[in-house]
Amino acid sequence: MKSVKIVSIGTEVLMGNILNTNTYYLANELSMMGFVIYHHETVGDNRQRIENTLINSLNENDIVITIGGLGPTEDDLTKEVASKVTNRKLELNEDVKKHIEKYFLETKKACKSTYEMNTALIPVGSKLIENANGTAPGIIIEYNNKVLILLPGPPLELKYIWENGMKEYLISLNDTAIVSRTLKLCGIGETLVEEKLFDIIDNQNNPTIAPYAKTGQVHLRLTANGKNTIECNNLLDTIEQKINSIVGEYIYTNDVNETLESIIIKKCIDNKLTLSVCESITGGLLSHTLTNVPNASKVFKEGIITYANESKVNSLNINKDIIEKYGCISSECCYNMALELYKKTSTNITISTTGNAGPDGMERKKVGLVYIGICINGKVDVKEFNFVGTRDKIKELTVVNALNFARETICKFY
Amino acid sequence: MKSVKIVSIGTEVLMGNILNTNTYYLANELSMMGFVIYHHETVGDNRQRIENTLINSLNENDIVITIGGLGPTEDDLTKEVASKVTNRKLELNEDVKKHIEKYFLETKKACKSTYEMNTALIPVGSKLIENANGTAPGIIIEYNNKVLILLPGPPLELKYIWENGMKEYLISLNDTAIVSRTLKLCGIGETLVEEKLFDIIDNQNNPTIAPYAKTGQVHLRLTANGKNTIECNNLLDTIEQKINSIVGEYIYTNDVNETLESIIIKKCIDNKLTLSVCESITGGLLSHTLTNVPNASKVFKEGIITYANESKVNSLNINKDIIEKYGCISSECCYNMALELYKKTSTNITISTTGNAGPDGMERKKVGLVYIGICINGKVDVKEFNFVGTRDKIKELTVVNALNFARETICKFY
Repeated sequence: MKSVKIVSIGTEVLMGNILNTNTYYLANELSMMGFVIYHHETVGDNRQRIENTLINSLNENDIVITIGGLGPTEDDLTKEVASKVTNRKLELNEDVKKHIEKYFLETKKACKSTYEMNTALIPVGSKLIENANGTAPGIIIEYNNKVLILLPGPPLELKYIWENGMKEYLISLNDTAIVSRTLKLCGIGETLVEEKLFDIIDNQNNPTIAPYAKTGQVHLRLTANGKNTIECNNLLDTIEQKINSIVGEYIYTNDVNETLESIIIKKCIDNKLTLSVCESITGGLLSHTLTNVPNASKVFKEGIITYANESKVNSLNINKDIIEKYGCISSECCYNMALELYKKTSTNITISTTGNAGPDGMERKKVGLVYIGICINGKVDVKEFNFVGTRDKIKELTVVNALNFARETICKFY
Repeated sequence: MKSVKIVSIGTEVLMGNILNTNTYYLANELSMMGFVIYHHETVGDNRQRIENTLINSLNENDIVITIGGLGPTEDDLTKEVASKVTNRKLELNEDVKKHIEKYFLETKKACKSTYEMNTALIPVGSKLIENANGTAPGIIIEYNNKVLILLPGPPLELKYIWENGMKEYLISLNDTAIVSRTLKLCGIGETLVEEKLFDIIDNQNNPTIAPYAKTGQVHLRLTANGKNTIECNNLLDTIEQKINSIVGEYIYTNDVNETLESIIIKKCIDNKLTLSVCESITGGLLSHTLTNVPNASKVFKEGIITYANESKVNSLNINKDIIEKYGCISSECCYNMALELYKKTSTNITISTTGNAGPDGMERKKVGLVYIGICINGKVDVKEFNFVGTRDKIKELTVVNALNFARETICKFY
């Protein structure tokens, strides 16, 4: 397997002015393609530091991909340094020159003559990949059995070059296949997952199994390595079966693109069910999460955020006595929120949340005490949770657990 | 000025499974505080490579901050390697042990004895910063006039530690004074801001002026450099006055901690006003943004997400004829959403949103067409917007503009 290092060049990334989404995108693509990545690095617009970074990176890796610093201005140093490091001259490339002239004509910007044409200076002997979203092409320099690739920084330009030639070029360098699969678990902590799977994880190097803790969830990433994708998928099927036999009850999907909310929306669409939500503690985050799924509008009827007690009584018809007797942060109130919303909207499934996210105690109830209710065709079930963390974390945990509780309940009936 | 390097440790970042938002956050904080950053690096869960990275990083920088690898499992190697590199032992820390026991007790998870207690193994002589959102504390190792700082990877834990002691510790290491101030603008684009301020930005190196485009907003970060904070603040006052005279009408705060939503909530508390929200296009995101402000419960009465037309008619009493004649994505519908919510809840201020976030057209209305309504004591005002972008971006732009419209309206009357 060939190793690749990703080097981001630019003071803006270094100082935290922009989020490095390019490295995330390329790293994911490259690891899915079966390349090994040992390091990412970010370095500012400084000639000497870029040079040191490129020399070290080429020594330690088969392939180095730089991002950024290909523009025409003085602080764009990548091509200059790359030429020096690989012992070749920079020369005006006629094809790139024509592309730049055409690009400026089409976007109706005046071309700043020689200045703008710095972008057309290319290390001699490079292979080029065209950039339809900008002026700087992708540059491939093959040198001493190593490959140095230069990509522009704007994400739309980088992606265009990647998808229109660069990815294909890299596939041609590859000798093995690698396939990954992600199992997503909810309702169990990372430590317990690892304990239960200890023997499998420990005795296993192909596929490898890597557990990742998310807020309220654990994801297991399985990565297999083989001659071709069929061989990889066979290896993955075998290990997935083993894992399923141990923690299967917590696994809600093996599709990396599925989420708790997308499963709920899909289940509702398939079974012609409608969905409404009544939130107190989550303040809109649960509705936002659900309505963010494309096509949510086909099943999501109404959300109501009864933040004030008054709103619970007037808009949702919760009995005043219940609030006075048990408080809003109670199983009884949560039960009635789900039930009254069902009565009011005639929705098949309603979800309710109430609790204390802090920072201060309310109704003498502890910070982190949360109730989640699900009403399915008039039958209500309520669960109590005790979460620990900041206001944000408690809200997020409430949303994840409400979604999982809803998913389980819907799957039980449909 | 002291130099800092940020080192992310973890195969999931390396392979592009998670976006490195931690480095972005820390880099931004550190450069605001006046530290110099020459490099970021990411390395996987591999003992030898982590060791090499730490040794090189400490050689070349005053301060090294690692992110990740502090958990209890076998692939969490950061503390082990950091101890080796700084020549000290790992020992069970009683305070951390107690914190972990308490944390697990509160979250009702059984503490898995010795295994989970790996998190309490701390390099001898370290300073610790507590983590209320998890088990692993922030660790400070002072070694040979250098500082090695270890932070956990989950963003909520990292931020908690940063804001509750780590930032303060780093400020104490700083030798010159650097003070930053952020002017936040809404209702004007980045290019226009730069054009209007071109002369000031170009002729200025202390304070420096850096414009950052946010979704629907522009932030101007002014950074002054001086002997002490008084000198810095005087420099900042002068430049802020100049900027105010040119784009003052768009500036809504010069306090980095203030947001559009926090200003609205404060204004409502100060003037004893109540607030309710009726959302269609934003699906809960507007209520979530407002209720995320601490103390929002003092003024926020009710949110209602009338996603289905039926819900607009039944729960909000919108006239069916209006929806049939103009559609839901119309100024008329938006007007009535704000008005009917006011009538129903007797809230001083109501905000309504309706529009098409895409991906497909609806009611033959263009993707990006959005209406926002504000009702203040019964008087409604509606604005039309045409946004460009993906579904997420259009929803975010709607929320930002709704907040700004509400802020402007409230400030006009109170």
